[in-house]
Amino acid sequence: MVRGSWDAAARPAEQEVTRSVTTQLSPATTGRWTDHWTADTLASRYDEIRARTEQLAAPLSPEDQTVQSMPDVSPTKWHRAHVTWFFETFVLAEHEQRFAPYQDKYWFLFNSYYEAVGPRYARAERGHISRPGAHDVGDYRGNVDARMRDLIDTLDEGSLDKLAGTIELGFHHEQQHQELLLMDIKHVLSVNPLQPVYAGSPDPAGAPDRLGWVDVEGGLVEIGHDGAGFSFDNELPRHRTFLEPYRLGDRLITNGEWLDFMADGGYDRAELWLSDGWGRVTGEGWRAPFYWQQVDGTWFEHTLHGTFPVDPSLPVTHVSHYEADAYATWAGKRLPTEAEWEHAAQTLAGEPAPDANLANADTFHARAAGPPTGGLRQLFGDCWEWTSSAYLPYPGFHPAEGAIGEYNGKFMSGQMVLRGGCALTPPGHTRASYRNFFPAGARWPMTGLRLADGGASGDVNGGVNGAITGGIER
Amino acid sequence: MVRGSWDAAARPAEQEVTRSVTTQLSPATTGRWTDHWTADTLASRYDEIRARTEQLAAPLSPEDQTVQSMPDVSPTKWHRAHVTWFFETFVLAEHEQRFAPYQDKYWFLFNSYYEAVGPRYARAERGHISRPGAHDVGDYRGNVDARMRDLIDTLDEGSLDKLAGTIELGFHHEQQHQELLLMDIKHVLSVNPLQPVYAGSPDPAGAPDRLGWVDVEGGLVEIGHDGAGFSFDNELPRHRTFLEPYRLGDRLITNGEWLDFMADGGYDRAELWLSDGWGRVTGEGWRAPFYWQQVDGTWFEHTLHGTFPVDPSLPVTHVSHYEADAYATWAGKRLPTEAEWEHAAQTLAGEPAPDANLANADTFHARAAGPPTGGLRQLFGDCWEWTSSAYLPYPGFHPAEGAIGEYNGKFMSGQMVLRGGCALTPPGHTRASYRNFFPAGARWPMTGLRLADGGASGDVNGGVNGAITGGIER
Amino acid sequence: MVRGSWDAAARPAEQEVTRSVTTQLSPATTGRWTDHWTADTLASRYDEIRARTEQLAAPLSPEDQTVQSMPDVSPTKWHRAHVTWFFETFVLAEHEQRFAPYQDKYWFLFNSYYEAVGPRYARAERGHISRPGAHDVGDYRGNVDARMRDLIDTLDEGSLDKLAGTIELGFHHEQQHQELLLMDIKHVLSVNPLQPVYAGSPDPAGAPDRLGWVDVEGGLVEIGHDGAGFSFDNELPRHRTFLEPYRLGDRLITNGEWLDFMADGGYDRAELWLSDGWGRVTGEGWRAPFYWQQVDGTWFEHTLHGTFPVDPSLPVTHVSHYEADAYATWAGKRLPTEAEWEHAAQTLAGEPAPDANLANADTFHARAAGPPTGGLRQLFGDCWEWTSSAYLPYPGFHPAEGAIGEYNGKFMSGQMVLRGGCALTPPGHTRASYRNFFPAGARWPMTGLRLADGGASGDVNGGVNGAITGGIER
Amino acid sequence: MVRGSWDAAARPAEQEVTRSVTTQLSPATTGRWTDHWTADTLASRYDEIRARTEQLAAPLSPEDQTVQSMPDVSPTKWHRAHVTWFFETFVLAEHEQRFAPYQDKYWFLFNSYYEAVGPRYARAERGHISRPGAHDVGDYRGNVDARMRDLIDTLDEGSLDKLAGTIELGFHHEQQHQELLLMDIKHVLSVNPLQPVYAGSPDPAGAPDRLGWVDVEGGLVEIGHDGAGFSFDNELPRHRTFLEPYRLGDRLITNGEWLDFMADGGYDRAELWLSDGWGRVTGEGWRAPFYWQQVDGTWFEHTLHGTFPVDPSLPVTHVSHYEADAYATWAGKRLPTEAEWEHAAQTLAGEPAPDANLANADTFHARAAGPPTGGLRQLFGDCWEWTSSAYLPYPGFHPAEGAIGEYNGKFMSGQMVLRGGCALTPPGHTRASYRNFFPAGARWPMTGLRLADGGASGDVNGGVNGAITGGIER
Repeated sequence: MVRGSWDAAARPAEQEVTRSVTTQLSPATTGRWTDHWTADTLASRYDEIRARTEQLAAPLSPEDQTVQSMPDVSPTKWHRAHVTWFFETFVLAEHEQRFAPYQDKYWFLFNSYYEAVGPRYARAERGHISRPGAHDVGDYRGNVDARMRDLIDTLDEGSLDKLAGTIELGFHHEQQHQELLLMDIKHVLSVNPLQPVYAGSPDPAGAPDRLGWVDVEGGLVEIGHDGAGFSFDNELPRHRTFLEPYRLGDRLITNGEWLDFMADGGYDRAELWLSDGWGRVTGEGWRAPFYWQQVDGTWFEHTLHGTFPVDPSLPVTHVSHYEADAYATWAGKRLPTEAEWEHAAQTLAGEPAPDANLANADTFHARAAGPPTGGLRQLFGDCWEWTSSAYLPYPGFHPAEGAIGEYNGKFMSGQMVLRGGCALTPPGHTRASYRNFFPAGARWPMTGLRLADGGASGDVNGGVNGAITGGIER
Repeated sequence: MVRGSWDAAARPAEQEVTRSVTTQLSPATTGRWTDHWTADTLASRYDEIRARTEQLAAPLSPEDQTVQSMPDVSPTKWHRAHVTWFFETFVLAEHEQRFAPYQDKYWFLFNSYYEAVGPRYARAERGHISRPGAHDVGDYRGNVDARMRDLIDTLDEGSLDKLAGTIELGFHHEQQHQELLLMDIKHVLSVNPLQPVYAGSPDPAGAPDRLGWVDVEGGLVEIGHDGAGFSFDNELPRHRTFLEPYRLGDRLITNGEWLDFMADGGYDRAELWLSDGWGRVTGEGWRAPFYWQQVDGTWFEHTLHGTFPVDPSLPVTHVSHYEADAYATWAGKRLPTEAEWEHAAQTLAGEPAPDANLANADTFHARAAGPPTGGLRQLFGDCWEWTSSAYLPYPGFHPAEGAIGEYNGKFMSGQMVLRGGCALTPPGHTRASYRNFFPAGARWPMTGLRLADGGASGDVNGGVNGAITGGIER
Repeated sequence: MVRGSWDAAARPAEQEVTRSVTTQLSPATTGRWTDHWTADTLASRYDEIRARTEQLAAPLSPEDQTVQSMPDVSPTKWHRAHVTWFFETFVLAEHEQRFAPYQDKYWFLFNSYYEAVGPRYARAERGHISRPGAHDVGDYRGNVDARMRDLIDTLDEGSLDKLAGTIELGFHHEQQHQELLLMDIKHVLSVNPLQPVYAGSPDPAGAPDRLGWVDVEGGLVEIGHDGAGFSFDNELPRHRTFLEPYRLGDRLITNGEWLDFMADGGYDRAELWLSDGWGRVTGEGWRAPFYWQQVDGTWFEHTLHGTFPVDPSLPVTHVSHYEADAYATWAGKRLPTEAEWEHAAQTLAGEPAPDANLANADTFHARAAGPPTGGLRQLFGDCWEWTSSAYLPYPGFHPAEGAIGEYNGKFMSGQMVLRGGCALTPPGHTRASYRNFFPAGARWPMTGLRLADGGASGDVNGGVNGAITGGIER
Repeated sequence: MVRGSWDAAARPAEQEVTRSVTTQLSPATTGRWTDHWTADTLASRYDEIRARTEQLAAPLSPEDQTVQSMPDVSPTKWHRAHVTWFFETFVLAEHEQRFAPYQDKYWFLFNSYYEAVGPRYARAERGHISRPGAHDVGDYRGNVDARMRDLIDTLDEGSLDKLAGTIELGFHHEQQHQELLLMDIKHVLSVNPLQPVYAGSPDPAGAPDRLGWVDVEGGLVEIGHDGAGFSFDNELPRHRTFLEPYRLGDRLITNGEWLDFMADGGYDRAELWLSDGWGRVTGEGWRAPFYWQQVDGTWFEHTLHGTFPVDPSLPVTHVSHYEADAYATWAGKRLPTEAEWEHAAQTLAGEPAPDANLANADTFHARAAGPPTGGLRQLFGDCWEWTSSAYLPYPGFHPAEGAIGEYNGKFMSGQMVLRGGCALTPPGHTRASYRNFFPAGARWPMTGLRLADGGASGDVNGGVNGAITGGIER
């Protein structure tokens, strides 16, 4: 276990993972994941996860992998090394015979715990570290991979059972960093006037589509992870909560709808905004989503596939909670609570298929909604959906006893919950109970929104804003 | 000619009130208050409220009334003028025949709505305005009082019914500023090395007392204002919510218990703190509650009655949400949700008597708990109790239509809910459904904490920390 | 018990004075002043100086005297107390029999030396101190005045000789604060939308006037104080310096000329500005001198006499060094060096008459130049003239040995020299060798400019800018 | 010529060069350089200068060349591209037939003028630009080199004469960036915990040596460039100035002497420091020179050759002006003025030999003084020596007429002059009249100090501090 202070400035998703590390080392006790692993399946999954990381980094030059374009992002080579450090520290250091670290100082450089004295400064300095270079990191990965395979091969069954939980946690950890790697390099490339392109052409978009509504009855429902398969601790415990009848938009809000909001003075009307949000609008000059730029009257959007005119049929992405909330207010609606979202997802959609966003494995942007289905569309794998819920512990969540629970819940302050996963989320990584979280002002994650309405008796049937009406159920 | 704009990043409680103004002008529609007013009772109440403000300001010199010792506080004379401006603007300007403002520029100076060019800057500049002086503000108050009495005397019954709601809102608004005036001058006097005293000697304190626990059954309960008497809009609508069985501490945490926390490294152990809280502890050097100072090994506390050694039997006050949360974590407990607090208060304690804190009308600090009662002690009028709930809209709350709802919900972001009222709250001002709110780092309000436990099946009976055990019910 | 430290990032002029205190306690040694004082003349001068301070504060309410409208200014009552503290500390505490301080904590509150923990913060907090009030400060002054008169009356001749130097230093110190008191209250009143007026109507202005030039031969000249009468240490030693022939404008630049600069894009053309200056222009939005505001197309100027349309015949005031330098560049000229200014003043103008600005004892703004005189006009008592010289020690200046020299030269970094005195400078306070200094960006002091030209052979006769031509000598 | 605003945040040395560009395009007019160039000598010198840049970058990986470790430093690949852009813009674009830029956007990226809208932000973002990569920059250099050689080969004699001045300016510009490249990469490598080494072992140091003094008579002397060979405009015009007799230390202050200063409380005693310097000491925690670190009681110094124990016989380097001034005060001495330094260098040392620091072409640190010579040692090529002179225009310096002089003198504000050159300065680049300049708080340049004394009659012969005595001349 690691001593010293915790990287307080770390990005939420990163922290959430590492925090989980400390609490989920005893799967037998917590029952938080149930997959039965053999040496073969474990090694095979290990290879698969690890290969995907390198595949994502492959298009990037050593220089690309070095840059940190703002404190919230990390260099690509840091991600590649950090997830490797995780296996070296939590698996090899604990279980390898005659363990010796690959390089002493890597512990310091790639440990998101390390930032003892000045944590925020240190995180913001990841882009100041030129060495080890991208190639050196590749060597480090190769070394750890070989040792991991050796270890898995030589474990007896009892040890394997004990260790599989930690290794599986490492898989989910690395997947989170795969998503972050893409979000981060998207920002790195965005600040370059040469407008570099990460990957080939994007998919053709679907046709614009009318927003429908899906009614949900509510009542005394249960949310939280139900114990089948892996989860992070913040999805627990499953618990009861009461919901008045409500409705959810059957798809995400589109760029076209966002342009309507802008055309109607969305960024000029203080009355639509939360006070803190309005402070950002005026203080930082927000006029459009984060990656939009207007050239000669046309709005363009920076994507990993290049810079293109904004496509009105695609979901709007890279908007903050403040912007999502202002949009909902403008539309006469609101954002869903996380309980409403999860209950609807469980009831009406079920879990995402393991290959939910395999379809866009090479398409790094949200897709058009497709034709109406009579149910909820775009729940998984397009963009993280802001909810109206603050990120707080579930009833009954409390720190585990002893040092293992030292940091539980530490980030449950000042952030908002997002649900669903985005186009950069690895296939199979998300689920209905998954709780992501970011500060209300964050714009660089791939975020979007879905509207909600109702939630108190008598409200559900009142259409408020003619611009967004219709509905499947009626 | 005006140099710079005035005001407007008003403190939460202030905003909450003024926001209410715009939505509660039609009591007949909303039914949010039910008192039947006659010209006599209205005038009498008006005089009573207005006199209390002047009584609170009386011990303060013109210089005292001018100072703004940090951006969060406002000068005394600004409070006295602002509440007067409220009646002039929302009552006289609307209903007085041949209305003319007392002084044109007072609208600008004493209007907390004015958020034009640089609102935050302006608010922080209230202490830069030497004129009108304290005496001039007295003249302004006298003028408006005379006109208000004339107006009330001459209204016919229909107009009175229509206007009474706005005037009553002015009463509650002025009461909020009475509390703020005291909180603010407490800070102003605290920064003065001469250690000025606002008022005479404090009460003798009671003896230290053992913390007991009160069990609450929970279930599908209702919270929110029930429609009898006045409320602010954020207390509405009354709605159902589900609570697992839980228990509440039967009194507030004391200074003595806080000293135990400090002695056990409370401010040195990162593992007890929310991440943002730990950032404040290290960044701002927090070592004790806000108004405590250690001299020669003894802790002293600044109060409106002077600076005294910390009394271990009194409730701890002036701690932030972060500190309250860290304490609860240290104690193996948690803070209550606002629903738990309100449901318990309604069920077990009822509304505070109209004279709830009359007893300490001249005692401007929280009192000792007194002997155990078998129920909840210190619910109203000692210190605002931090809850674990973010300040968010109740289900079914949404902005009123039209301009009247412009600011609804605007501050429902980034703040935490507090309940109960404090020793500086005017008699009769608080109630079980009253929702106060401050940022999690605020320390200058008179805040404290009560512990909670349980909240999920099986947890209630497990005593966690021997330091805080026992309990009335067992 | 004290909350936080007080003071100490005192304003330059303040520091310069107090620094002088420590080096000039032995006039016999340094010969820096030569006035022969008797008990009668000393007491009479003491009364005169002290009465003028109270006279300047008389128009100001207790609230006016309390406000600190930005960190650079100090409250009026602080000035009144600080100069009193000077006599109590450096005279009474050293020479009074049975000395006891008037109030222990006043030493802390009114001592600009105290730089312990957080000096800059403390200075910026002078406006947070409501007590002692203005009346209490009056009591303090009365007490010290009585004791000072007693002391002067009872000294024998030897002691008087020894003490007179310190007391005379206190006179000059108090005069500096008289000037600061006015500069500071000018700013305090400027931020008030009620536009308070400090004093009655200003003088009628003279007619606009053509700028002439005065040629000076230069050569190996001497500058620095010549030993007759009082000086501060930074005016020493008198020393040789070499000047090429040069010329000086015979009067200050006027508001009218400044309007021409503005009309010609003065604040829009980066090429006219020093780099740091352009950073301020763009970063802080400078568009005109500090106290100017444009209303409906007309420029108005805040003065101690009220807010009036800008008078083109008066000297421009409240411009920074950056603005003065940009103006000179625009005009094809430059600012004079301090050696050029002093040499010309000595040679062509002599010392100011003791009553140099008595004429405007009740006129707190710079006056029009008056008709050409064939020499230098407006040298003393209109506005402090920016020079092109950095504030550095004269050759041969070095710290005195021992603690007495602790602060010598401490501020000789990062500031520019100004010469001449301004309309707020007390009569008799300034002289040809007087070196004032402020950071290049300071705008709240009463500053202006005079042009120079030449300074290298062949340059003097070349008229550069037709807008400013003519000249007495040609 | 380039429009738009100037990069205000650019480092002094960089700006000084580019500013020179605009004024020195007419060498025939200004006579500022006199070398006679032929096509052969010009091409040969071009190749030599250009090759050295690539040689300096050769040890650095693509990742090393990408990092910007603080706003003051620029990435290596930016330097390599920027000096290339200079030749493309000021030579090829003006004189090449059928000119077309190598890459349109390179103008934006490698133009230190480019930072139109937000200059400071842009400069600080050089490290955010991953592409073009280090290899791409090599291609750019090759392309421009080929075109430059073609151009030089095809010029007739008249065109060559006209163009040689600009090309020679490009040589000096590239040399300045060679020095900056090394200063910058020194910082980049210093922040890496892996402690990368730039180059092989350092020289063995000489033995410690006693400080001697060299007396200089002074009088009415001349300083400034005398017109033979190249100079920058800020070295002009040569002019008279008066100096009292003075003396200079015959060598630089050593690390050993600096350790004495530290041991005597140098960083703890406010009385030794300029006020602004003391603010940095306390605000930024300065305890030793910039690149020193204490490990287990021993001081280590980061160099381009690795991290070594501090060698007491070497000159102290990487100290700010504030530190140099505090040291001199502690030693009872002072820093020299720039006029004193230049006059002594001209009189007693002459110009540096063209190969002055060839000896340390592969040694990137200051060398020990070597044995006493009876004259001034270490004048050129060890470390830039802080003077007590503010960076201001020489008498008679004024902006050239027309656009060409737009930016003259722009940085003559808020900086101090340094003289002599340092171990990173290319051979042949410095001279006695060379004026370098940095803000008083800069520590990352390779700076040091030499003491001065005297300067006013009677002072020269008074030894002040026994710790530094002796002297060659006595």
